[in-house]
Amino acid sequence: MKIPWAVPYIDETELAEVTEAVRTNWLSMGKRVRALEEELADYLGLRHAILVSNGTVALDLALKVVGVGAGDEVIVPAMTYVATLNAVLYQGATPVFADIELETFNIDPQDIERKITPRTRAIMCIDYGGNPASHSELRDIARRHQLVLVQDAAQSLGGVYQGTRLGRQGDISTTSFHAAKTITTIEGGAVFTDDDGVAERLRILRNQGEDPKHKYWHVELGYNARMTDLHAAIGLVQWRKRDAIWARRAEIAEAYRSRLADLESTRLPVTRNSCGGHAAHREPCCRNGWFFFPILVPNRDHVAEILSVHGVETRICYPVPVYEQPFFRTRPEANGRYSCPNAVAVTSQVINLPMFHQMTTEQVDYVCQALREALAEV
Amino acid sequence: MKIPWAVPYIDETELAEVTEAVRTNWLSMGKRVRALEEELADYLGLRHAILVSNGTVALDLALKVVGVGAGDEVIVPAMTYVATLNAVLYQGATPVFADIELETFNIDPQDIERKITPRTRAIMCIDYGGNPASHSELRDIARRHQLVLVQDAAQSLGGVYQGTRLGRQGDISTTSFHAAKTITTIEGGAVFTDDDGVAERLRILRNQGEDPKHKYWHVELGYNARMTDLHAAIGLVQWRKRDAIWARRAEIAEAYRSRLADLESTRLPVTRNSCGGHAAHREPCCRNGWFFFPILVPNRDHVAEILSVHGVETRICYPVPVYEQPFFRTRPEANGRYSCPNAVAVTSQVINLPMFHQMTTEQVDYVCQALREALAEV
Repeated sequence: MKIPWAVPYIDETELAEVTEAVRTNWLSMGKRVRALEEELADYLGLRHAILVSNGTVALDLALKVVGVGAGDEVIVPAMTYVATLNAVLYQGATPVFADIELETFNIDPQDIERKITPRTRAIMCIDYGGNPASHSELRDIARRHQLVLVQDAAQSLGGVYQGTRLGRQGDISTTSFHAAKTITTIEGGAVFTDDDGVAERLRILRNQGEDPKHKYWHVELGYNARMTDLHAAIGLVQWRKRDAIWARRAEIAEAYRSRLADLESTRLPVTRNSCGGHAAHREPCCRNGWFFFPILVPNRDHVAEILSVHGVETRICYPVPVYEQPFFRTRPEANGRYSCPNAVAVTSQVINLPMFHQMTTEQVDYVCQALREALAEV
Repeated sequence: MKIPWAVPYIDETELAEVTEAVRTNWLSMGKRVRALEEELADYLGLRHAILVSNGTVALDLALKVVGVGAGDEVIVPAMTYVATLNAVLYQGATPVFADIELETFNIDPQDIERKITPRTRAIMCIDYGGNPASHSELRDIARRHQLVLVQDAAQSLGGVYQGTRLGRQGDISTTSFHAAKTITTIEGGAVFTDDDGVAERLRILRNQGEDPKHKYWHVELGYNARMTDLHAAIGLVQWRKRDAIWARRAEIAEAYRSRLADLESTRLPVTRNSCGGHAAHREPCCRNGWFFFPILVPNRDHVAEILSVHGVETRICYPVPVYEQPFFRTRPEANGRYSCPNAVAVTSQVINLPMFHQMTTEQVDYVCQALREALAEV
C-alpha cells in the first residue's frame, strides 16, 4: 500500500468552475476573488478577508500593515514553519523566540512574558497542526503590554477556540490555501481584519500600492500580491465542501487517536476543552482544524524511514526549532541566546502521519499497524 | 464601437491545457512550470529561465541574487512602471533616476554616466513598450564601471536588438506574463540567467529558501514566489502561438504608423535600425516587441477624454516620472535632486493606443479617426 502524506480533495466540480473562469473572465483579480473574500469574511464574522498570492505573502502584508519595522522585536513560536520567522525578517525587525507548551505544541504564554522587552511590538502565534493556541492568554498579554497579536491560522481554518472560529483571534489574522491545506486554492492566502482602514490599505498594498481610482498612480510602496480568479475558482468550490472536509479530517484524527491510545512510547498533543462537536459541555468548545496528525515517537528519524519502507509518507513538522534553520544561524540576529527546551524536545520526536479527505479507515489501520511495527523495531 | 486597450488572446486551446492540468497534476509547481521554463531558455539561448509569481517578484529576486543591498545605489529610468523603482526600495537600496532618450523613450546612457557614483551597484533598464533600449551602450557602461546590468524585458519579449532576442541583454534579465502582456499566464514572471549558480539560488529563493533535497530545511532567507502549473499551462499554449501574436502586433503597429504619419502635432518613438522583418539591411536588425503603441500628443488628458467618449480605451504609460509617484515623494530618498526633463516632457504628452492580437484593421482605422477628431478638437 502507498499512502501519501496529503492529497487535495479536488474533483470535477472544481474543474467545472475553473473552466468557467477560463471561458468568461481573464482578469487577474475578478469576481471569483471577491466572492471568495465575502464567503471567508462571512464565515469568520469579520468585515474583511483579503485574498493574496499565498500564506507567506499574507503574513508579510499583515506585519507591514500593523506597522512592524526595523528596530521592533516580534515574538514568534520556536516551533513553526519558516515563513513565521521570515515574515519578521522581511520587515527588518528582530525575531525573539518563545518556547512552546508541551501539551499543545503551541507558543507558551508564560515564556512570552519572559521575552517581552520595551522594543517588543507584536506577538505571532500559529495554531500548530490545527490545534488552537492559548488565545485567551495571548489576548490578555497583548492587551496588558499593548502589543499587536498576529495570528497565523494557516493550519487551523475550520477549528474553533472557546466557541469562536479560528482565524479571528488576532488583531490581524492570516491563513494559507496551499495545496496541502484542508481548503486549497493550490497557492493562495488571506488576511482577515475587522478594520476598514486596514483592509483598504491591504488592498492597495496587494495591488502595487495603486490608488484604486487612478491607474498608474501609486500612493503606497506596494507589491504584486494578487490572487487570480483561476485559483479563487478552485477555492470557491472547495469552500462549498468545507463542512464535509473538516468533519472527515476530525474522524480520521479520532480513528488515529483511538488506535494509538495504548502506545506507551508515544504522545499526542492535547486539544483543550474539546467538545467533539457536541454542545453539552460546560466549557466553551475548542476544536482542532486538523491540518495534520502529529505524534511524538522515540527514534523519530528511524521510525520515519521504516514507515517510508512500508509506503507511508510522513512529514517532520518541524525538524528543528526555527532559530536553528541553517540560513538563520549565520545572521546577526541569531546571537545564540535562544533556548527553548520544549521546542528542542518536540522537534526531535515529532512525526506527522498522513491525513487527507479521501483517506479510508483501512488506510488509517495500515498506517497505525506500520507505526506499531516501526516502534517495535526501533 | 468599443475598443478595449488590451485583451488577452486566449481560446479553447488554453482551456484544454488548463483542464488537463486540473485533471492530472495538482502540484503547485509541476511539469508545466518546468516545460515552460525550458521553452523560454531555449528561445533566448540561455541556460536558465526561472518562472515566478509575477514580474515584480522577478525583479525583486533578480536584485537580491545579484547582491543589491542597503547602501547601494541603483540607476533606474525616470519613465517606467513603478515596479522598477519598488524593486530597488525592497532591497533597502537607493534609486537614482536617469533621464530617457527623446527618440526611444528608453533610459539615456549619457545621463547614466552623469549619475554614477562610487556607491552605484547596478543599472536597471526596460524596453519601453517593447522598444529596445540602447543595450550596446548600456553594456559598455556596465563593463567600464563594473556595474550589474539588470534588464526588465516585461514589455519586450518577442523583440530583437541588433540581431539578438530581447530578454538576454542584462547580466540578469526578467520578464512579466501579466494578462495585458503579449504572451500571458494571467499572472506570472520569469528571471533569465546563463549562470548555473545564480539559477540554483533563484530556485531556492523562490521556494522558501528550502534545500531542494531536504524538506523543511532552509538554507536561505527565502520567499514563496512560486508559479503554479495552472498558470504555466496557459503560458505553454500561449508560447505555441507566439510567432502569430508578435507578427500580428507588428502589423497593427505598422497600420497605426502609416495612418498617423502625416499628423504633424504628434510624435512616435523610433525603433532604431529596424529591418521590418527583412534581413537585407547592413545594420543588425532591431525589432520592437510591441507591448503597446505610444504616441505623443498635445493636450494629452483632453485627447484621452475625447477618445474615451468615442469608446476607445487608452492608457497613460506613465502619467509622471516615476520619482513623482505620490508614495515616493515623501520618502527620504526623494530629496528633490531629480531632474529628468525628457521624462517630464514625455510623461506629459504620452498616450498609449489600444493594441491586442484580435484587433482588426477596421478597429485601427476607427482609433485613428477618433484620434484625428480629438486632435482637431483640442
